[in-house]
Amino acid sequence: MKVKFRDKIYESNERSSFLKLAESVGIDIKEVITVKAGGKLFDLSSSVPDVNEVEFLDFNSPEGKMVFWHSSAHILADAVKRLYPEALLGIGPPIDGGFYYDFYNLNIGDNDLKRIEEEMKAISKENNKFERIPLTREEAEKRLSGERFKLEILNDLTGEITLYRDGKFEDLCRGPHILSTGAVKAVKLLKVSGAYWKGDNKRESMTRIYGITFPSKEELDEYLKFLEERKAHDHKKIGRELELFEFLDVSPGSPFMLPKGTIIYNELVKLAREYDTKYGYQEVITPFIAKVDLWKISGHFDKYRENMFEVKPFESDEEYALKPMSCPFHVLIFKSKTRSYKELPLRISEHGIVHRYELEGALDGLLRTRVLQQNDAHVFVSEDQIEDEILFELKELKEIYEIFDLSPVFIAATRPDKRIGEDELWDKAENAIFRALEKAGYKYTIKEKDGSFYGPKIDIYVLDFTGKPEAAYAVSTIQVDFNLARRFDAKYTGKDDKEHIPVVIHRSILGSFGRFMGVILSNSKGELPLWLSPVQVKVLPISDSNKPYAEEVAERLMKDKIRVELDESNSTLDRKIRTSQLEKVPYTVVVGEKEEKSKTIAVRDRSGKTSYNVDLSKFISDLTEKIRLRSKA
Amino acid sequence: MKVKFRDKIYESNERSSFLKLAESVGIDIKEVITVKAGGKLFDLSSSVPDVNEVEFLDFNSPEGKMVFWHSSAHILADAVKRLYPEALLGIGPPIDGGFYYDFYNLNIGDNDLKRIEEEMKAISKENNKFERIPLTREEAEKRLSGERFKLEILNDLTGEITLYRDGKFEDLCRGPHILSTGAVKAVKLLKVSGAYWKGDNKRESMTRIYGITFPSKEELDEYLKFLEERKAHDHKKIGRELELFEFLDVSPGSPFMLPKGTIIYNELVKLAREYDTKYGYQEVITPFIAKVDLWKISGHFDKYRENMFEVKPFESDEEYALKPMSCPFHVLIFKSKTRSYKELPLRISEHGIVHRYELEGALDGLLRTRVLQQNDAHVFVSEDQIEDEILFELKELKEIYEIFDLSPVFIAATRPDKRIGEDELWDKAENAIFRALEKAGYKYTIKEKDGSFYGPKIDIYVLDFTGKPEAAYAVSTIQVDFNLARRFDAKYTGKDDKEHIPVVIHRSILGSFGRFMGVILSNSKGELPLWLSPVQVKVLPISDSNKPYAEEVAERLMKDKIRVELDESNSTLDRKIRTSQLEKVPYTVVVGEKEEKSKTIAVRDRSGKTSYNVDLSKFISDLTEKIRLRSKA
Repeated sequence: MKVKFRDKIYESNERSSFLKLAESVGIDIKEVITVKAGGKLFDLSSSVPDVNEVEFLDFNSPEGKMVFWHSSAHILADAVKRLYPEALLGIGPPIDGGFYYDFYNLNIGDNDLKRIEEEMKAISKENNKFERIPLTREEAEKRLSGERFKLEILNDLTGEITLYRDGKFEDLCRGPHILSTGAVKAVKLLKVSGAYWKGDNKRESMTRIYGITFPSKEELDEYLKFLEERKAHDHKKIGRELELFEFLDVSPGSPFMLPKGTIIYNELVKLAREYDTKYGYQEVITPFIAKVDLWKISGHFDKYRENMFEVKPFESDEEYALKPMSCPFHVLIFKSKTRSYKELPLRISEHGIVHRYELEGALDGLLRTRVLQQNDAHVFVSEDQIEDEILFELKELKEIYEIFDLSPVFIAATRPDKRIGEDELWDKAENAIFRALEKAGYKYTIKEKDGSFYGPKIDIYVLDFTGKPEAAYAVSTIQVDFNLARRFDAKYTGKDDKEHIPVVIHRSILGSFGRFMGVILSNSKGELPLWLSPVQVKVLPISDSNKPYAEEVAERLMKDKIRVELDESNSTLDRKIRTSQLEKVPYTVVVGEKEEKSKTIAVRDRSGKTSYNVDLSKFISDLTEKIRLRSKA
Repeated sequence: MKVKFRDKIYESNERSSFLKLAESVGIDIKEVITVKAGGKLFDLSSSVPDVNEVEFLDFNSPEGKMVFWHSSAHILADAVKRLYPEALLGIGPPIDGGFYYDFYNLNIGDNDLKRIEEEMKAISKENNKFERIPLTREEAEKRLSGERFKLEILNDLTGEITLYRDGKFEDLCRGPHILSTGAVKAVKLLKVSGAYWKGDNKRESMTRIYGITFPSKEELDEYLKFLEERKAHDHKKIGRELELFEFLDVSPGSPFMLPKGTIIYNELVKLAREYDTKYGYQEVITPFIAKVDLWKISGHFDKYRENMFEVKPFESDEEYALKPMSCPFHVLIFKSKTRSYKELPLRISEHGIVHRYELEGALDGLLRTRVLQQNDAHVFVSEDQIEDEILFELKELKEIYEIFDLSPVFIAATRPDKRIGEDELWDKAENAIFRALEKAGYKYTIKEKDGSFYGPKIDIYVLDFTGKPEAAYAVSTIQVDFNLARRFDAKYTGKDDKEHIPVVIHRSILGSFGRFMGVILSNSKGELPLWLSPVQVKVLPISDSNKPYAEEVAERLMKDKIRVELDESNSTLDRKIRTSQLEKVPYTVVVGEKEEKSKTIAVRDRSGKTSYNVDLSKFISDLTEKIRLRSKA
């Protein structure tokens, strides 16, 4: 029998138990959480089934974490029952990042978590063995008699019935579990929240406790640090604190951009427009709604309907759909006049606002919304122009990414099995993509068969604060499309005076402006570069008598189109400085008697460094230049 | 009996006929078209009914025109039957701007109109009297036996049946008519088009002939000149010719802004954003869709539903509506935090894109669409701030109107009978409106009782090319609203530490950007000022050898963000200049050997004036300055 653990492979025929098997090949059982054989997970204490291969799994495997956190949920339930005997048990599964357990008749708040945590630690110290108890339905009903929610689950259960016991605590459970409670060396309960039994708002309200555990204190500390870091990078929290945007129930998935958020948003649109103009894109504005027939021709109605919204006048029978993409409209514009090869590549761009239905649970602040405005473009090219055009697009991408100091991760996706277009054309387009990426000096990964049925593509990702590629944000895309123009019968006259179907390249650099804003807010923790900051300078008079001078300074800044706020509130100077810092304002200008006399200003930057005796004109010209160049700091 | 004609009043008791009556008081019957008595129109040849007052009407009255053009339709039908005896008669009503007549089995084109016109003139010369013939249904059926469409009308007819005869021509008709065909001194047939019998696309296709007539040749000439002028001012024609926008069947009422139109559109948005920022407005971006509940609170669902679109995911039961206005969202933003009197006036603006359902027949290019982006704002004020705020808004309006050289026409609308809010508040708000207009130095007309039920308003109109106030475009609006904040329970804390409901002022200066674009395109005949022109300079090389220099010139202009096009086609220079003129390009730069040698350019402006030996740098700096200042020329 083959025995795997981490990167090593052993041989053994010890089948009396997994524990013995591990021992027989010298695997330290303390490092093992669970074991997989024949595609199933087992308790380490069980005997080895008739298989050729067994894999021991540690905490770093997804299955190891799942079992570990599942056992931890039992420990949590045990602790709660010890402290609150009147509480009834609901369910307690492992989840991504820990576990939870639902209780009925448990009235506690976050303040009570410490006590429960302590109880869990005590249970861990007891090092109770987890024991699997198969039993009949009648026996099970007897043993769970006081737990009406467990009885309800039991009632729904088919197949083998098992309880798991650790110490005196028993729970209806399929397992498997860790060997004993002692493996859980570090516990953190995260929060209390409400939940309905079975997620049904007509059923009982349960109290849900979330927690996480680790095999060592170090791992927990590291995780808690990560949680802190993640909180600091949470774009929704940043958006709330800096009053950038909000979400209201009246329109799930549609942000309300508040004044300060709108400034950031508009700066992004302005940037995209500026670069697209420089790169020869011709901007258009197309409708929001179109007859369903159009979406049938484009294919969206067949393949994308579940993401689309239907639109009907309340008092008429006309039928439309809200656009989920602008592509069909751009092809109609291409078709609106006779086109010659001389016009290619024809670059049509739009800051198109599209609506895409997403389930409410899938929405995530600005990162996943139902309405999005795209930095969208469609380039009509001949087959021979694909490579040059993609290289051209990558050049623009490079310029824009440099502004934001973003390191892109490129993934090139090639032909899938189901596709349209001749292999020759696919060869051409895939090679064009590879060569363009190489010429642009970019490294890339190939994802075989991951292209669309209509052509190969490049997806460009931006790393998040963790720097892990698997957590990166999909931001930009360059997609070759052999199908779109064909569907609309869009053609151009070639040099040979014959009609040809253009290839369309879908291209978006910033992706959705809202989403991009979410990404940069997260990555910068809200400390945006000067040009993007909603308030660029805050002016603080030291005392009331300095107010006129502070106003004069603010007005001069405003005259030069620097976004300035004057804080004339009655707070102390220290508190005003602190507010300015919390608001992530790049420059805080302080003016007191000294400054007024010398007609200068004191300038404090975001790092806390203060420069005195600064000449206002010099300050303005420095800032204006920084803003003009969209400097990173 | 009182007898009125034009501005004069006479007395007479002559009742034998209207003709005699006119004669009795010395009215020249040649000047009269029809006569009104007891609210009805009569033939001049009929006897006078038992009334106390009779009014004779000339061609300048709406009723006079209607009768004149109705009789002209009979003359047209007579002419067609003489020339095409096989044609069958449909209907022939007077319309706004002439009349038409529908015929069945008449295959003619615009080229045949001249011949019919000649025949009509002949009929006019015959000076046949119009004669009213009352008759029984049986007699009528006999006389109309060959005319199956007339028989269908007869069949639907109830009450008295009358024919009208002039010469040999008879038509089923209620009248009244002019005295005789000789009154029609000038005839112009305008066009031939198709129409369905009874407007029903399942019925017969008819041939519709449009025409217009006048009592004198001079009036016709003047009208034809007006038509020419109107055509030159037709924003749809301008949009098509300059490739600014188009409309497609896939989305009626939603313009496709083509690249050149988008440039104009974006310049308008930029202008509005610039001025609104200067005037302290805080821009926001709000959702496109919201749950129907919101529109119930706002009142739109009750009062505006027929103009609204319902929105539903294709594969879910959720129900939304597309926003027809942004007001409710702005109130929600106002409500999103505690507000103090210190924040008032709080000016929230949005370039909100709204959808409003209009019948397809009511759509009119950019002037009436189903989607519009507004230069929208809502200002939250205390009752005491209304006047100052309106004055402030009028100041911004004045600045913006001056850029476009527009003369506004102000109409102040006061409290209607059905309204909310105390009279004291209405007094305050109406007086605020009047005083603000006076302080701003504007003349205004008061339209009594024309305010909304929620407050008084100012509507601001812009004259069209005719300069007639009745044809002016409604562009800007300032509306005081006592109701909106109340409906949403939005409040602020006053100086007195108590809660108050703010008054909301709805304000739009440019109105809908698309519509405003339509207005200025029409008024300027497409000759936009430099800053708004999609192509600001066109560069033409005289010969192939001058192309490199032409390219150099174009690049230098482009570098300074001047929108430039290079015409390197193989046309002659004259044709290229003519194209540039037709495209309404402000400056056409011509470069030949002479220019290349002296490193200068020749510049031709839109009026045709050419300046030679122009220094390129000087030209660029002049243009840049003009663009920056948004100069009128």
